[in-house]
Amino acid sequence: MAKTFLSSLSLLLLLSSASAFRGGADWQQQGRRQCDITRINAQDPSSRLESEGGVSEFWDHNSDDFQCAGVSFHRHTIRTRGLLLPVYHNAPMLAYVLQGRGIFGVMVSGCPETFESPQQSPEGLRGAEKFRDRHQKIEQLREGDVVAIRAGDPHWAYNNGDEDLVVVVMQDNSNNANQLDQNPRSFFLAGNPEMGQQQQHQQQRFRGDSRREQHEFGNIFHGLDVETLAEVFDCDQETARKLRSENDERGLIVIAERGLQVIKPPSYREDQYGRRGEREGHNGLEETICSAKMRENVNNPSRADIYNPNAGRLSTVNSFTLPILRFLQLSLAKGVLYKNAMMAPHWFVNAHSIMYITRGESNIQIVNQNGQAVFDGQVREGQVLVVPQNFAVVKEAGEQGCEWVEFQTNANAMFNTLSGRTSALRGLPVDVVANAYQISREEAERVKFSRPETLFFSPSRSSAARRHGGRVASA
Amino acid sequence: MAKTFLSSLSLLLLLSSASAFRGGADWQQQGRRQCDITRINAQDPSSRLESEGGVSEFWDHNSDDFQCAGVSFHRHTIRTRGLLLPVYHNAPMLAYVLQGRGIFGVMVSGCPETFESPQQSPEGLRGAEKFRDRHQKIEQLREGDVVAIRAGDPHWAYNNGDEDLVVVVMQDNSNNANQLDQNPRSFFLAGNPEMGQQQQHQQQRFRGDSRREQHEFGNIFHGLDVETLAEVFDCDQETARKLRSENDERGLIVIAERGLQVIKPPSYREDQYGRRGEREGHNGLEETICSAKMRENVNNPSRADIYNPNAGRLSTVNSFTLPILRFLQLSLAKGVLYKNAMMAPHWFVNAHSIMYITRGESNIQIVNQNGQAVFDGQVREGQVLVVPQNFAVVKEAGEQGCEWVEFQTNANAMFNTLSGRTSALRGLPVDVVANAYQISREEAERVKFSRPETLFFSPSRSSAARRHGGRVASA
Amino acid sequence: MAKTFLSSLSLLLLLSSASAFRGGADWQQQGRRQCDITRINAQDPSSRLESEGGVSEFWDHNSDDFQCAGVSFHRHTIRTRGLLLPVYHNAPMLAYVLQGRGIFGVMVSGCPETFESPQQSPEGLRGAEKFRDRHQKIEQLREGDVVAIRAGDPHWAYNNGDEDLVVVVMQDNSNNANQLDQNPRSFFLAGNPEMGQQQQHQQQRFRGDSRREQHEFGNIFHGLDVETLAEVFDCDQETARKLRSENDERGLIVIAERGLQVIKPPSYREDQYGRRGEREGHNGLEETICSAKMRENVNNPSRADIYNPNAGRLSTVNSFTLPILRFLQLSLAKGVLYKNAMMAPHWFVNAHSIMYITRGESNIQIVNQNGQAVFDGQVREGQVLVVPQNFAVVKEAGEQGCEWVEFQTNANAMFNTLSGRTSALRGLPVDVVANAYQISREEAERVKFSRPETLFFSPSRSSAARRHGGRVASA
Repeated sequence: MAKTFLSSLSLLLLLSSASAFRGGADWQQQGRRQCDITRINAQDPSSRLESEGGVSEFWDHNSDDFQCAGVSFHRHTIRTRGLLLPVYHNAPMLAYVLQGRGIFGVMVSGCPETFESPQQSPEGLRGAEKFRDRHQKIEQLREGDVVAIRAGDPHWAYNNGDEDLVVVVMQDNSNNANQLDQNPRSFFLAGNPEMGQQQQHQQQRFRGDSRREQHEFGNIFHGLDVETLAEVFDCDQETARKLRSENDERGLIVIAERGLQVIKPPSYREDQYGRRGEREGHNGLEETICSAKMRENVNNPSRADIYNPNAGRLSTVNSFTLPILRFLQLSLAKGVLYKNAMMAPHWFVNAHSIMYITRGESNIQIVNQNGQAVFDGQVREGQVLVVPQNFAVVKEAGEQGCEWVEFQTNANAMFNTLSGRTSALRGLPVDVVANAYQISREEAERVKFSRPETLFFSPSRSSAARRHGGRVASA
Repeated sequence: MAKTFLSSLSLLLLLSSASAFRGGADWQQQGRRQCDITRINAQDPSSRLESEGGVSEFWDHNSDDFQCAGVSFHRHTIRTRGLLLPVYHNAPMLAYVLQGRGIFGVMVSGCPETFESPQQSPEGLRGAEKFRDRHQKIEQLREGDVVAIRAGDPHWAYNNGDEDLVVVVMQDNSNNANQLDQNPRSFFLAGNPEMGQQQQHQQQRFRGDSRREQHEFGNIFHGLDVETLAEVFDCDQETARKLRSENDERGLIVIAERGLQVIKPPSYREDQYGRRGEREGHNGLEETICSAKMRENVNNPSRADIYNPNAGRLSTVNSFTLPILRFLQLSLAKGVLYKNAMMAPHWFVNAHSIMYITRGESNIQIVNQNGQAVFDGQVREGQVLVVPQNFAVVKEAGEQGCEWVEFQTNANAMFNTLSGRTSALRGLPVDVVANAYQISREEAERVKFSRPETLFFSPSRSSAARRHGGRVASA
Repeated sequence: MAKTFLSSLSLLLLLSSASAFRGGADWQQQGRRQCDITRINAQDPSSRLESEGGVSEFWDHNSDDFQCAGVSFHRHTIRTRGLLLPVYHNAPMLAYVLQGRGIFGVMVSGCPETFESPQQSPEGLRGAEKFRDRHQKIEQLREGDVVAIRAGDPHWAYNNGDEDLVVVVMQDNSNNANQLDQNPRSFFLAGNPEMGQQQQHQQQRFRGDSRREQHEFGNIFHGLDVETLAEVFDCDQETARKLRSENDERGLIVIAERGLQVIKPPSYREDQYGRRGEREGHNGLEETICSAKMRENVNNPSRADIYNPNAGRLSTVNSFTLPILRFLQLSLAKGVLYKNAMMAPHWFVNAHSIMYITRGESNIQIVNQNGQAVFDGQVREGQVLVVPQNFAVVKEAGEQGCEWVEFQTNANAMFNTLSGRTSALRGLPVDVVANAYQISREEAERVKFSRPETLFFSPSRSSAARRHGGRVASA
């Protein structure tokens, strides 16, 4: 009996602690950010979803670092002729095109359908006789494009190129524009997106409710009954059933077998497009939300905001260059660090920074308020690293150099540096430096004025010597 | 013994789950919204409080849907000569007058007492000899008025009409203006409001602390000692005791036996008042907070913003029509849906919408991000339905038609529709529609261009035929 | 057996409640404010940290009232020649200088080093030959100064006077500028601040994790490895080790043995400085963030915003007087209450108020929404009292009078009063007062018009008579 009792006791304790655990997990799901971070991880996607027309990969937004930043992250690989079904999210998002070409559209209720085919075609436009339509603005996508989309605005994308169109997306669930909780939600207007074949990459952590691992989505037409749909679209019930996509197993990216015929203006040739295609007619003042610019390309090196020919460059997209970001309270920077070059240790004053490596690899250290290195390691292409607000970070490119985009949770993310020409240490009097670090005035002067560069540091002679046994040529 | 033990075990589990439950409840009380909603309910008030001069009914702000929206809701029925005692709340509120007439005042420290009786009365105004007073602005209330009041501003209301004055109030506890937690709090300047006779309508849900069910309120003078009150009002202790209303059992609405004599400008006659009484001298620019317009009537059909003579109309009050809403970050719409008419399926992009049915009934479906119908049923006069941000909703009026007000948690709530002339589907290219729903281009064109109306849809021929066995006459 | 079982039962319950307790604590650590306050305490610091150059004292930010307000509070006593090491915080802060003189600097990346010594010194400035430096703006500190510093901006302070420099600091962790959780974090750029000798004043409350009691801080250079530091400062590893301050046991305030030589403009003499030294060239419009005014003195009685020669005065610093507060969303008021005078009962409409007594003592009552006195007692010099938003408060100075500063969580904190010339009761019609308190119109008139003063009330005749057995002379 005693034994029975004891095992029952254990059972009870188990139950009790299990419920306590669930309690904690619930709390996190309920979304208040908590930033008691002692360990940050470079993360790969934790789950993937195969669709007919491509693959979607999701990072674990329940991990501590994503929870602290209040964001979620996913990547779509859209195959040729793949169509990402129309969808809106509960939070504003920034997308970055890693590779490929395509077109996309954002639909805003009340905005006019400004792309239209004429009823008659006096000038004999191609296909105009049999192809009649009118729809809202369509824009082109290509590598290096940043696209900003507001919470609640439905959008779609289509790969009209010859290679995969790959897009990474950050969704800022803790943004003021989201009045729901911090979980990511995607409301599809079609398809059966949750029917895609889903797989967990990693072994799943123990949780009371494994469903929580996933970003939630579905087709909102599913929830409306067939009769109602028939009524609001004034169609027969068979068509209404198709709107609900009941037996659709294509997932969230589908293949347009015969391609997609839409109305769009002729493209510039690549060289023209690259040079002057994007900024015409936009001055940030004359826009309404219907004609607002939602896209900006950051790939062109001549667009750099910070540039050191020996070390690297940074191109930023913020509310000054893309005014819609003032509403989204997000910004983005594209960084390039040359072989063995470093980025000055710095911290973001007013934003979290979510970094995605687009090429190469980088050694990174991140330090918290206790002076602990919460991350010290290598981050490779395709990984995501969260750098929380105020945490200090330093990066050093590997032998192949490193390129990345960083998504920032402020319309004008600002950083302070610890060394270099515009650093905090430069702003200190020499005597403060000397007393703070218990070094002589001369040493303090050397430390303070050592690096003449701003943000990107070329490899120093000593480190270069260490690496290559010789002196680095300077450009 | 074994049996005893097992029952003890059950007891333990009960206790354990009870505490777990309380944990959850605590969390909710602590106010972070959580929106993992799988079921929304059309709600009636959960408790009522009888006062001398009327009845106050409270909706359960601890229910999941109210918690997600971060709001609370109550309704005052003020009898003839009833005075709602002066009170301020911890959050901004919007009130809507369902029925009756009255007056109200909002007191803002530092604003002048601009309503004054002359010391001498050269022109022999009525009662001016014996009635001397000066106080802040008083305004009139009548059916269809929307009143906006900031957090912390004390206000009172009085029924000077012949029938009950009925007012519904939404308090936005998750508004930035509230720096306390998300629980509703009302600070009365008089009376003993908590002494009213309170009853729970519904069977109370099991909770560790039943007090949590209630909106908290009391008279702040209670907490100040008699001597202090005597000092700050320079009065004797007997009067000070009366300020504390110690033995007052009248509740929060009291009867002014001999009516209420106040200084107020003559009213327009009804017809004039309705036509031009309200907007004079207000242009949204020349106001200070002391003269800010706080009231707007939405009942007049000629004021509609969206109108379909065969289906219904919508009148909105937002920061463009009532500038103080820019500070409150709230808005309101009054909707009227005619017999059997429908409202296009839509979702709010930037707000929760809390709907109160003022007349008739409506069949409503609400869909979440998983494509689940979280509500599918009828909502009747006097019920409240929470429609969370981004959740899709479709409404169909019953045989008597339906009228409602919806309170929105944004100064300019915006929605997107799924069908109709300005819908997301209209913005899509026909080929995207065809591929998304696996239908032919012809079907896609029909779906896309089917409904020529914007938001209010008259019953279609087929549905009308279904209902009436005949064709509907169109106006 | 039954007995054993029962005691096991007790054990289980104990475990269960312990875990429930921990649950609660976890929650608090995770930082969502919760304001179900039934008891507020006048608080002394709960821990202190001895450094070489002074003492830092911390209030318990985990206490219910601080958690509700979302702020933390600490006090530095910096000895002569003491240097507070460069540090930035995760939240905006307001500091108030209680005593002494000093200098301080705030470093903002990208702002120019505008304080510079000439390379040649044609006019023979003192020390210019051997002393060459350039650094960012330095400002002076003296008693009565309010200093506003943004989240993430590093700053330092130095006592160049003859007595201790004492500064109290409020850090607004629930401010929008902080995207981390609500725990206070300080990122030092030097030293080994956590190595100071720390002591808990009070008996520690039972908590699962006692570390939580403390404000977290450390030197961010600790987290960077020596090689990286050598690289980014282009220095040898020995110097890099010094930057990490590995063996530094001086704490967070160090002594500059030979004083601190910095570039700064000559001071005004005290009387000039007091009269016109501070506002030159600042009009709130021509500033950039680099030249923004960050300091304002509130000690001069001639600067009062509200003044009663018989009772007291209030001087406010808000976004109109110190424009940077518009970004910080903080303000401050300095109050002086003469012997036995009272402050009208009032509540803050849009802010919490955190009060620090700088001299004397005061009897204070604070009332919550239930009409409960959550505080009723004396607060002495050096104590902190949190007055939550909307809670009513009344103050009466003791025999020595009382001076205080109150830190407010809004750029323009506003209050309403309950009695006096601009009070809510003055705004009410006499008949509303009479009916609300069940008193005659004549009594209502007396109550309403009793106090002709605005905010500061001189002792009334009756109370003075009570105290002194005689009549008070009026000034």
